[in-house]
Amino acid sequence: MKVLVTGASGFVAPHVAKHLTELGHEVILADINREEGDESVILADLTSLGDMLDATQGIDGVCHLGGVGDVYLAATKPYVAASANVLGTANLLEACSINGVKKVVYASTWEVYGEPEYQPMDEKHPCNPDHPYNITKLAGERLAMAYDHMKELPTVALRLGTVYGAGMRPNSVFSRFIIQGLNEEPITIAGTGEQTRQFTHASDIARAFALALESDVHGHVFNTVAEEVVSIRQLAELVTSVLPTKIEYLPARAGDVPPALINSTKAREVLGWSPATDFKTGLFGLIEHIKVNSHAAPSHVLADSPSG
Amino acid sequence: MKVLVTGASGFVAPHVAKHLTELGHEVILADINREEGDESVILADLTSLGDMLDATQGIDGVCHLGGVGDVYLAATKPYVAASANVLGTANLLEACSINGVKKVVYASTWEVYGEPEYQPMDEKHPCNPDHPYNITKLAGERLAMAYDHMKELPTVALRLGTVYGAGMRPNSVFSRFIIQGLNEEPITIAGTGEQTRQFTHASDIARAFALALESDVHGHVFNTVAEEVVSIRQLAELVTSVLPTKIEYLPARAGDVPPALINSTKAREVLGWSPATDFKTGLFGLIEHIKVNSHAAPSHVLADSPSG
Repeated sequence: MKVLVTGASGFVAPHVAKHLTELGHEVILADINREEGDESVILADLTSLGDMLDATQGIDGVCHLGGVGDVYLAATKPYVAASANVLGTANLLEACSINGVKKVVYASTWEVYGEPEYQPMDEKHPCNPDHPYNITKLAGERLAMAYDHMKELPTVALRLGTVYGAGMRPNSVFSRFIIQGLNEEPITIAGTGEQTRQFTHASDIARAFALALESDVHGHVFNTVAEEVVSIRQLAELVTSVLPTKIEYLPARAGDVPPALINSTKAREVLGWSPATDFKTGLFGLIEHIKVNSHAAPSHVLADSPSG
Repeated sequence: MKVLVTGASGFVAPHVAKHLTELGHEVILADINREEGDESVILADLTSLGDMLDATQGIDGVCHLGGVGDVYLAATKPYVAASANVLGTANLLEACSINGVKKVVYASTWEVYGEPEYQPMDEKHPCNPDHPYNITKLAGERLAMAYDHMKELPTVALRLGTVYGAGMRPNSVFSRFIIQGLNEEPITIAGTGEQTRQFTHASDIARAFALALESDVHGHVFNTVAEEVVSIRQLAELVTSVLPTKIEYLPARAGDVPPALINSTKAREVLGWSPATDFKTGLFGLIEHIKVNSHAAPSHVLADSPSG
């Protein structure tokens, strides 16, 4: 299958692209920006319908991970999130429809649910997003579903858990803790550290994209979130167990999304997906990766990635 | 209060503007297009943040009725609806926030609810829109609420009923029936005509905007929908009771939104709003208006209005 992966300069897309290549797919990478001289990524702007028509020509399947993935950027400039995540997704869907793409897999997020009405939340839970990031991600997801039922473009949306793995943004809690630990600086936690997440390893997310792409299932959304529930404090303690540092607590930061339990039974039953990486293994692998790469090429590890 | 009304070349905005002027407000009209030579409307493109910054300078309150209001246009070109209704609203909200606007009233729609889970639907009913029109209208509504709670821009969203009154689009069921009747052609109903709507008169919608604008309430959404439930068949029969025509039935049209009952108790209790125009009075007034204007200036009555 010839597969276009958008958001290629972001964090998650390279994992998806690598996995698809390993499975034998021909992968085309696209993003609005790329590292200088990196001609493996085609330059394409989601907000340009023309660029999307070009990028999807001759493409069989699309994994759409492009857009604004940075919650803090979306909060500061909601119009940028609206442009990339809603208009951008609409342009891509229209181009896919025109060019006869056979499957689109959309990267949505567990954050679309908003305040939990029951837990763990499955796909039937109402969606009440209240932040420009998850508002715009949900609108893109719903447009994808509308193209499926109104315009015969087969689409699947994956509501991703909080993804971690190599290439994370430097402002992620993982990158911060590990870099602080490697530099023998104290690890700083905003708030009590009791808030939890179902951190999901990038390799597991990559498998979910491949399964959704290759499946005949369409017109469905799936939670793809690891079962393991980990607190920020536990994450910090695991880091301090292998790196020479200690934990310090700071005042809580406004705007952090409160925890909520997510159920991914539907993805297991329909797509045959289940996360394969337990948190400790995934985290220690990431620490090793950053340790090796931060000595070799610190600027790469710290490079800002606006999409992903 | 100096009030900017967007979507001024559409159908509903002129009713809002007229009512606000009668109440003593200074009204500034804006739209992306206007009738040739009509300098009462300033030209401003929602998709341009620069235009929105210009349009909101020195403005106290905004009634935001601009965007794609035509359900069929939104279905054909979802990227146009995404651009006008989501990016456009985000640009306007950002501009209002920067320019210190004191109140924004957003025109949302009862169609954001999607398939009813219970009826009549109040504002607590889950929103599951599945059409590019209501998906993009809901995203704009949620961005307005996000600006209220994250950026201290006081906003209210009104989920309007199906509005009728002078200046309706020529492809609306009202315009079609009345023009057919005036021309002594048979009135054609797609489907059985049993589907119902809570048609709400434009003058009642105009009062809702004024009440929301002048109220201290913000960060809330309100259904503003007339209580009276009218079927398309009843509408046709009322038209045939005063015009020399009869009814003919045609096959149902795909994409029509199924009926759902809407409860507007919250708007009555919090804003003091209730619809004042009963359906028969409103309809007969509209027939008289079209009768007079279709002789005097048929091109005006039939002019296409892309937003509203």
